[in-house]
Parts: sequence; structure tokens; C-alpha cells
Amino acid sequence: MSVHNAFYAQSGGVTPVINASAAGVIQTAKKYPEHINKVYAGQDGIIGALSENLIDTSLESANDIEALKYTPAGAFGSCRYKLKSIDQHRPQYERLIEVFQAHDIRYFFYNGGGDSQDTCHKVSQISETMGYPISCIGVPKTIDNDLPFTDCSPGFGSVAKYVAVSILEASMDVASMSSSSTKVFVMEVMGRHAGWIAGASGLAVDERGLGPDVILFPEIEFDQAAFLAKVSDTIEKKGFCSVVVSEGVRHPDGKFLADSGVKDAFGHAQLGGVAPVVSDIIRQGLGLKCHWAVCDYLQRAARHIGSRTDMEQAYALGKAAVEFAINGENAIMPTIVRLQDNPYLWEIGKAPLADVANVEVKMPSDYISDDGFSITDKCRAYLAPLIHGEDYPPYSNGLPAYVKLKKHKLEKKLPPFEVLT
Amino acid sequence: MSVHNAFYAQSGGVTPVINASAAGVIQTAKKYPEHINKVYAGQDGIIGALSENLIDTSLESANDIEALKYTPAGAFGSCRYKLKSIDQHRPQYERLIEVFQAHDIRYFFYNGGGDSQDTCHKVSQISETMGYPISCIGVPKTIDNDLPFTDCSPGFGSVAKYVAVSILEASMDVASMSSSSTKVFVMEVMGRHAGWIAGASGLAVDERGLGPDVILFPEIEFDQAAFLAKVSDTIEKKGFCSVVVSEGVRHPDGKFLADSGVKDAFGHAQLGGVAPVVSDIIRQGLGLKCHWAVCDYLQRAARHIGSRTDMEQAYALGKAAVEFAINGENAIMPTIVRLQDNPYLWEIGKAPLADVANVEVKMPSDYISDDGFSITDKCRAYLAPLIHGEDYPPYSNGLPAYVKLKKHKLEKKLPPFEVLT
Repeated sequence: MSVHNAFYAQSGGVTPVINASAAGVIQTAKKYPEHINKVYAGQDGIIGALSENLIDTSLESANDIEALKYTPAGAFGSCRYKLKSIDQHRPQYERLIEVFQAHDIRYFFYNGGGDSQDTCHKVSQISETMGYPISCIGVPKTIDNDLPFTDCSPGFGSVAKYVAVSILEASMDVASMSSSSTKVFVMEVMGRHAGWIAGASGLAVDERGLGPDVILFPEIEFDQAAFLAKVSDTIEKKGFCSVVVSEGVRHPDGKFLADSGVKDAFGHAQLGGVAPVVSDIIRQGLGLKCHWAVCDYLQRAARHIGSRTDMEQAYALGKAAVEFAINGENAIMPTIVRLQDNPYLWEIGKAPLADVANVEVKMPSDYISDDGFSITDKCRAYLAPLIHGEDYPPYSNGLPAYVKLKKHKLEKKLPPFEVLT
Repeated sequence: MSVHNAFYAQSGGVTPVINASAAGVIQTAKKYPEHINKVYAGQDGIIGALSENLIDTSLESANDIEALKYTPAGAFGSCRYKLKSIDQHRPQYERLIEVFQAHDIRYFFYNGGGDSQDTCHKVSQISETMGYPISCIGVPKTIDNDLPFTDCSPGFGSVAKYVAVSILEASMDVASMSSSSTKVFVMEVMGRHAGWIAGASGLAVDERGLGPDVILFPEIEFDQAAFLAKVSDTIEKKGFCSVVVSEGVRHPDGKFLADSGVKDAFGHAQLGGVAPVVSDIIRQGLGLKCHWAVCDYLQRAARHIGSRTDMEQAYALGKAAVEFAINGENAIMPTIVRLQDNPYLWEIGKAPLADVANVEVKMPSDYISDDGFSITDKCRAYLAPLIHGEDYPPYSNGLPAYVKLKKHKLEKKLPPFEVLT
């Protein structure tokens, strides 16, 4: 049986558990030395392949690879770069084949979201179209949870846990302060096109009146009057109100709330941030001062509060990618198949990359309450298991002992190549 | 020996561990039934005493009181309310005495920062000035770490841990993305007058190039040119830059950066937020897009990543307050006395409330580097032990199982009273 090397890379926005998928790929590949010799990681995604910036993962210690399971962000660097089609950018694909040949790479694992699965799909085509034998397997990842065919996307569960824990805690804070000080707290979360992250904050709602009182989803047109009425009613009832707003919420005319004409002293449009805009709407509409937070990268880097379920799925998908590859599969993505909600049972499935690429799954309408401000029981049943379980990193001197890899680069064998953009 | 009841209340901005102090007071009081009968908690701080809104903590279960050790925010409600002097508002003090007499209260424990210690000090004067025998002990608390005479203030260590962990994680994220996407991340933290919280983020700096590259302290006038040069140099060297900015950073003319004339579409001054302002300065000055986060309440409610040291000190100070009181002390605040840095050893001391009230301790100048953008080794030696140790809450269904108390109110014995403002 012939033995070849594998390429692995990370692409798109990083997550708390994308490195767990990397560990799954690298550790599993080690178990099949009759198929896979070494795993070379691309420095900064596909750009690492094009520029021949390859990291020899076999030179990392076993402990350091194991530590990837609890280390957030992209250990090998990520990229925001989308390959054009073979017709449009044939030299890119020729270059990839040159690099793969130079380093005897016959396995390609690409870890990312919708755009990245599209890249993986395009690379898979060089097998048929250009005659280079390679097995391309996508490894799903995106905090946005918008990939099709999979029960959820690795990264989402941990972000969901972070936002639910954070709004639970902050709602307790504003409850404490509300009698003589701040009565409204607004928290901005990611999810420009789909409200999964905003929705996950709803898991913190309990019968004790904690958690978000209002959620603003990108799927629901912003109705200022209804929103202000809801905030006002909530304060009337409970004495305080906590709001979670997705960065992607839009006015009925399609304009993002975050782009609502806020100007600086020089008349320049100010950089985004929908939480201050929503706070200002409340201040002007109800005469109430708000506190507001913007989670931004904190939510998607927060491995310290990662979901154990999420970590286990991320690892399992990396492992499954290797197993599919050595079984001769090409152009597929392993998926999570839900068997039941409670207790949550899942297994690994697969989907063709051709069908996965560039599809965005939004929240189903029956996951959002009729008034548009909260999640339904059906949504809760779907989301709840994804934040289940804690998986704390080890600590040293009060801080998580995240690993930073050595990243030994392979010696380049080819002339430089200008990556097309 | 005569037995009387005790009053306990929480005041000012809440913290991840103020309830641990409450547990220290309540559990310790139980150990001295020959002195203290019941602990009545004020609903919403001193306002609860004035309005006779008293909570009978003896009706809470022992488990629920124990759970206060890991529950953030103010379990009994807090307030932002400062008593005026006895001369100015004598009716307030007469009312306090009426309420104390009606409920046989002879111990007064007030849990708060500088303003709250001032309130506690004023109440302590009714003993001498108005002849009502009461023992008033302040229990220190403030995330701002600006109380005098104590090595640190409970609440600060947990916030310090949160900001250090968060910027560590976010700096790993921006490092991953920097080759083809975002190169700068800006995180805003609290601390309007003192840079302790901003400084604590510096604990995440390590020899591997993680943690904040630039810290903007309220103690240092903002020098835009020097700041942009520092960011630019850092990107040149490392490829990315992470910035922590205190909400209290000011221009040389004394104006807060957060108030830099940002207007909304209607010409109204926009609600605060210094992170977007700093991001805009970077965007305009260096032509770089930034990601930015504003921690706001998330940082001071984040019990999920609380510091064990902080929790233990908060509890110990509540316990000490009761012990001082039954030993006949009045008008003092227990303090943390540092015996050595590493390993950190501390014991309980005390300070007179008269000296504590309204003093704000800023960062010493030798805690900030010469260029004004980082902390010194001396500062690090001071800060490091305060974030030491983890103290995770229990979880249920993926979320922290924080307690919400029953809060049984005492029957009122007095006519209503209008709290003066």
C-alpha cells in the first residue's frame, strides 16, 4: 500500500475548538502509518499551500498536539481567502499540484466554514479535472452554525455557552443595580446573517427571571416601536431589562442598525457596533441610561468556558475526516447527525462538498417566538445539548496554559509564487 | 451577654465575589449565637434600612447561603446612594435608629467601595453623636482596587483574571487572523480613575508574544502620535497588535477619549465607549481595520472565571467583620495585609473608616513602564498572586448553577419613610 503525506489547514474566522479538530486530524493520521506519513499544516490556510509555507506537525511534541484540544484560535494561522474556479485561476491550481507533488501530499484536509468548504470542493476537482490524485475532505467549523447537513458546526457550541453564561451573569448584575442605578443592559454578539448565537443566549432564560429579556435576531426586521414597548414592559414588570442583539440586525429598509449614520467629530462614519446604537435608541426613546457590552473576538476565543460537547464533536470530525480519506473518499465533509435530543446522542455522517459549499442555514421561523424577541421551546431543545459539559484548560499562574506550537517550517523546494487575490 | 440582630447590605457596583463576603458574614454570625441572633440583609443597600425593606437571611437554606460563595452580582440588591452628613440630613439618621430599634439591630455591616465606606463611617457616628449603640464595620469591595490600607479589594482579583484571560484569548485570535484579515484588536475595560484593571491585562503578556501589546491607562495622558507609532511598530514586528484601553483614558486637555464628540445621525452625543474611538483613531491614522470589544458588566459579573484567591479574601473579610464586631470594634474596615509575594501570604488587618472613606488609590508611577504602555515587573509581582487559582461554580445543563435567594422580607413595623436623595 502506498504511503503519502497529508495537508491540513485552518480557514476563516477561528473558534475555541478548531484546534481540537486539528488534534483529531494529526493524532488519527498517526494511527494509520500505512496510509499517511506526515501531516503538513499550511501556515495561514490555503495560502500556506500556495506559498509553500508548510509546517511539519511531526516535529511537535505529543503533549503539544494533545494541548490543541484545549487551545483556542488557529494554531497554524487562518486566512480569509477564497480560491476562484479552476477556469478563472488555473495557475493557482497548477501551483497547488506542484506543491503537493514536491511534498508528496495526497490528502487534503480543510477546516472551515461555508467559504472554506467551497475552497476544499474546488481543490477536490483537481483530482478529476487535472489528473492529480488527491483525497480532499472538509472539516466543518464555524461559530455561525450556518453549515448545512450537519446538526451543528464545531465552534458554535462553545460560543453559545459563552454568550449564555455571559448574559446570565450580566443580567444578575443589572438586576442588582436596577433599584437606584442602571436598569438596562445590552450585549452585542456575532452572527451577521444568522441568529444562532443571539438565540443561544436564550438558553440562560429561566423561571427565576434571569437571562435575556429581549433578543434581536438578524432574521427579524427591527421594529423600533415594538422593541421599546417590550423593554418598557419588562422594566415595568421586573425592574430591569437585559437585551442581546446580533450584529446583523437590520432596519426594515435592509440597512444594518450598526450603520445607522453615527458620525464622529469629523463627520466620518464611525466603525460598527450595534450595542451602542441600541442603547442610544433606548436612551432617546425611554430616557434610560444603558450599560452595553460588545463581545466581538472574546466570544469566539473564549476556550476557558468551552463546551465539552463542542470540543468532542470538533475532535471527532477531525478524526472522521482522516478515516474517510484513508477509505478512499473524496470531496465530502463529515457531519454531526443527531440521534436524539435528551440525552443528546449523535454520530458521524457525511455530506458531499458540492452540496455544502456556500449554503447558509438560518434560524427556522419556528425557532423564534411570535413576537420575534425570544426563542421557542423547539429551539431550546435543539440548542440545549450543544452547551453541555465543561472542559476546562489546565492553568498555570492563574492563566490558561494554552499551547503555542513550535511550527517548524519545511524547507521550500519550489520557486516563490505570487498568490493571486 | 446580650444578643442582638445584625444588618448587612451591599452597596455600589457589584462584583463576582461580593456574595462570598455576604456568606462570610452570615455563616460567621451563625457561629456566635451568644452575640448575634439573626442577620437581616438590606434590600438594595442602605436604602433597605431606610425603607425598612429587610430580608431575613435565617430563612434561607444553608445550601443557598453556601452557594453565595460562587454566585456573582449582589444577591440582596445594591444601590448607588450616598448618605449626606448627620448635620445635613438628620431625619435619615433618626429613621435608621428607628428601624434599628424596631428590629433590635446593633451590628451594621456595609459591603462596598470608597463611597460605601463613607456611608458606613457616617452610620457609625450615630453611636457617639446620637447615643444609639451600634457596631459598624465596613466590608471592603470594589473591582477598581482603589481602596486604601488594604493590599487589594475583593472583586478586583476576579476581574483581573477575567481581563487577563480574555485578552490572552483574543490576542491568540487576532494573531491567527492577521496574515490576511484583521491585524488589530482593541478591548475596553473598566476603571474610570485608576488603571488597575487595565494593568491586570498585562499579566497575560508572555515571552511568546501573547497578551496585550499596548495598554492605555487613565493615569497616563493619551498621546495619539506615540500610540499610533507603538501600534505600527508592533504590527511591523509581530504582524498584529492587541490593545487594552481603560474607559478612563483622557486627552491632555482632560477630556475623556470616550467623549470625543461622536454624534449620532441627529447630532446627539453618542453614549460612551472608548474602544470604538481608539479603533477609529487606528483606522484613520494607520488605515487599518480593527476589531474591538467592550467588556462592561461582563467583566465584573464573570464569576465563571473567578479568582480563588479573590473569593477566599472576600469570604475572609466578611468573616473578619463579624469577629471584629463581636469583639466590640466600631468604625473600622478589615483589610488584607500582604506578608509576601511569592508564594502569596496574607492576613487580616484593619483600618479606621474615617481614614478609608473617599480615598482613591491610583497605580503608583513605578507600576507603569516608561513609555506608558505596559506594566513593570514590580507591578506584575504585585498583581500576579491576585488572579491565582480557579474556583469554578457547579454547573447544571451547561450553565452555572448560581443561586437566587428566596429573600423573605421582614414584616414592617414602622410607617413608610421617604428616602431623601
